[in-house]
Amino acid sequence: MKKRIEKVQSYLKDQHIDLAFITNPDNVFYFSGFRSNPHERLLGIAIFQDMDPFIICPKMEIPDAKASGWPFDVIGHGDTDQPWNILANEIQSRTKNISTIAIEKEHLTVDRYESLQSCIQDASFVSIDEQMNQLRVIKDADELEKLRQAAALADYAIDVGVKAIKEGITELEIVQIIESAIKEKGYSMSFETTVLSGPKAASPHGTPGNRKIQKGDFVLFDLGVIYEGYCSDITRTVAFGEITEEQRKIYETVKRSNEQSIKAVKPGVRCMDLDRISRDIISQEGYGEYYTHRLGHGLGISIHEFPSVTGTNELELKPGMVFTIEPGIYKTGVAGVRIEDDVVVTENGVEVLTKYPKELIILQ
Amino acid sequence: MKKRIEKVQSYLKDQHIDLAFITNPDNVFYFSGFRSNPHERLLGIAIFQDMDPFIICPKMEIPDAKASGWPFDVIGHGDTDQPWNILANEIQSRTKNISTIAIEKEHLTVDRYESLQSCIQDASFVSIDEQMNQLRVIKDADELEKLRQAAALADYAIDVGVKAIKEGITELEIVQIIESAIKEKGYSMSFETTVLSGPKAASPHGTPGNRKIQKGDFVLFDLGVIYEGYCSDITRTVAFGEITEEQRKIYETVKRSNEQSIKAVKPGVRCMDLDRISRDIISQEGYGEYYTHRLGHGLGISIHEFPSVTGTNELELKPGMVFTIEPGIYKTGVAGVRIEDDVVVTENGVEVLTKYPKELIILQ
Repeated sequence: MKKRIEKVQSYLKDQHIDLAFITNPDNVFYFSGFRSNPHERLLGIAIFQDMDPFIICPKMEIPDAKASGWPFDVIGHGDTDQPWNILANEIQSRTKNISTIAIEKEHLTVDRYESLQSCIQDASFVSIDEQMNQLRVIKDADELEKLRQAAALADYAIDVGVKAIKEGITELEIVQIIESAIKEKGYSMSFETTVLSGPKAASPHGTPGNRKIQKGDFVLFDLGVIYEGYCSDITRTVAFGEITEEQRKIYETVKRSNEQSIKAVKPGVRCMDLDRISRDIISQEGYGEYYTHRLGHGLGISIHEFPSVTGTNELELKPGMVFTIEPGIYKTGVAGVRIEDDVVVTENGVEVLTKYPKELIILQ
Repeated sequence: MKKRIEKVQSYLKDQHIDLAFITNPDNVFYFSGFRSNPHERLLGIAIFQDMDPFIICPKMEIPDAKASGWPFDVIGHGDTDQPWNILANEIQSRTKNISTIAIEKEHLTVDRYESLQSCIQDASFVSIDEQMNQLRVIKDADELEKLRQAAALADYAIDVGVKAIKEGITELEIVQIIESAIKEKGYSMSFETTVLSGPKAASPHGTPGNRKIQKGDFVLFDLGVIYEGYCSDITRTVAFGEITEEQRKIYETVKRSNEQSIKAVKPGVRCMDLDRISRDIISQEGYGEYYTHRLGHGLGISIHEFPSVTGTNELELKPGMVFTIEPGIYKTGVAGVRIEDDVVVTENGVEVLTKYPKELIILQ
């Protein structure tokens, strides 16, 4: 963690920025190992060029912040305090020379921005979002190991879900079986588990309900597990009972799109190239209009993080980047299929973290 | 929903504001019935003084937005579009006269604010947060009915949890039993279920783990259920096996603090008065320093919403306000006890939504 703080400190020096004030809980975790969701209460890390940083958090969370291993000061504020005044005092007791402050413009709300402006007057503000993206986008060996574990748990969760499918079971009952299996191992999901069946699978962001699984359905699972703060995200679609020729064609098209995009992953390739490869395969089969979203998204401490793998993102891949590859076809009344894997860019190519098979599974 | 839009429209007229642009998903749900978490994608409702409003959302969510019953336009944007340009075009195709825009400063991020500024130039911006709070803080009959149902489900969840307690069961196993019971009924939790035992109950924001319940423990449950978009939030603490005299005293003190605060709820009383009543009782018994948070928080579509029931909030209660009453004592090494109810201010007093008993339960 200390190395991460040092990288920000040298960035601040390079850019002549006096202070970075970090409030995104995922970034706070990245720098401190302290995981907290403070809701509307103020949580932040103040990082200076040369002095030790400090955490500011709700008073009642001080013990947890200290227990996380953070070796520097932890400043608390109570529910009747003015947290911005406490912050200003802490900063000004360390230095009076704050003329430029870096903030996360993609996270900080306008009212907090105005509070910061009024408590540290005459400072100018710059965005540190890009720098945070650059820092977090390359995962180190320790992070990759956590992501591998998270992916293995996602594979396990899919296996539990597929095995739970039977005539008449509802989507929500399957969700419950999957989540229980993960909770029993002591882990939690990285987002609300999605199990969609039949016509509902054709909605890329549908919500599981009390619909009963029946023969001829595709059943789509989209889920992820958190391992020591790092997220996985996997989608598999399986058939229950015989399916039509068109449903089969849609499945095989999505599978090919997923596999060919993964094959193309290596340093120097651009995000947009991957999206193009996945989209061309689906368009060639006549389903282009039913592939209504980007190919994928970065993955790590956040379930959606930098980079966005879209048809317009010119970012070149580098070793250590981690993202999802998740093409889909959603043709209302016919089929909804998505196949999603988590991948790491390696020195020469790609490592696929999620390993659950992708051959069409037809459960009888 | 239309009435809610009309209230905003008359506010805009009164204040000479040309446009309100609403992006908080909870507020979008309040106005439209459309529940969506768009992550980093743009979701918003544009409300004008005299023209029909419109929703802007990711293209793939258009069907869901329409299915929610929203009777006005739904504008989609794809992953490769510039959503802010699409928004600007939609607004400018309706009117060229936008000089003042109301935004949720407590929700909108600085980068989105800057995007809005650059796509609608020369406009000035004002906050609509206070007005949104005023609108949402008074629940109508339909909302109160949903909150009653959500609270009844929370009572049920506590009952399931208490019945699951036995020697050697872990905190996470109990969480799993509770969440399964709620999922089986087709509902989901309003936040991550907390079950803390023994020394861990003394951390007001601790995380459940693999600790095994043992005799002499207090077991603290903090959980909530969502019913048709509305949240409940309850805390109960029960004893497993014999407890010490001091543990009993702490329990009874928290219970009295909870009950006396609830008794004081009626129109005209201030939030700070309630907090004071709860705190005085705990301080008189010598535990003031271990009551480290506010008395409660507003509750509705959001799990934490306006008003904040603190020792400094001068807001006077009005009929239809809904909030939590949740005093606690956290004395490390001795006991952690919190008792939380959801209450509604009525014309003459208070209705308590959560009904699970508060007499000290000692499980054998």
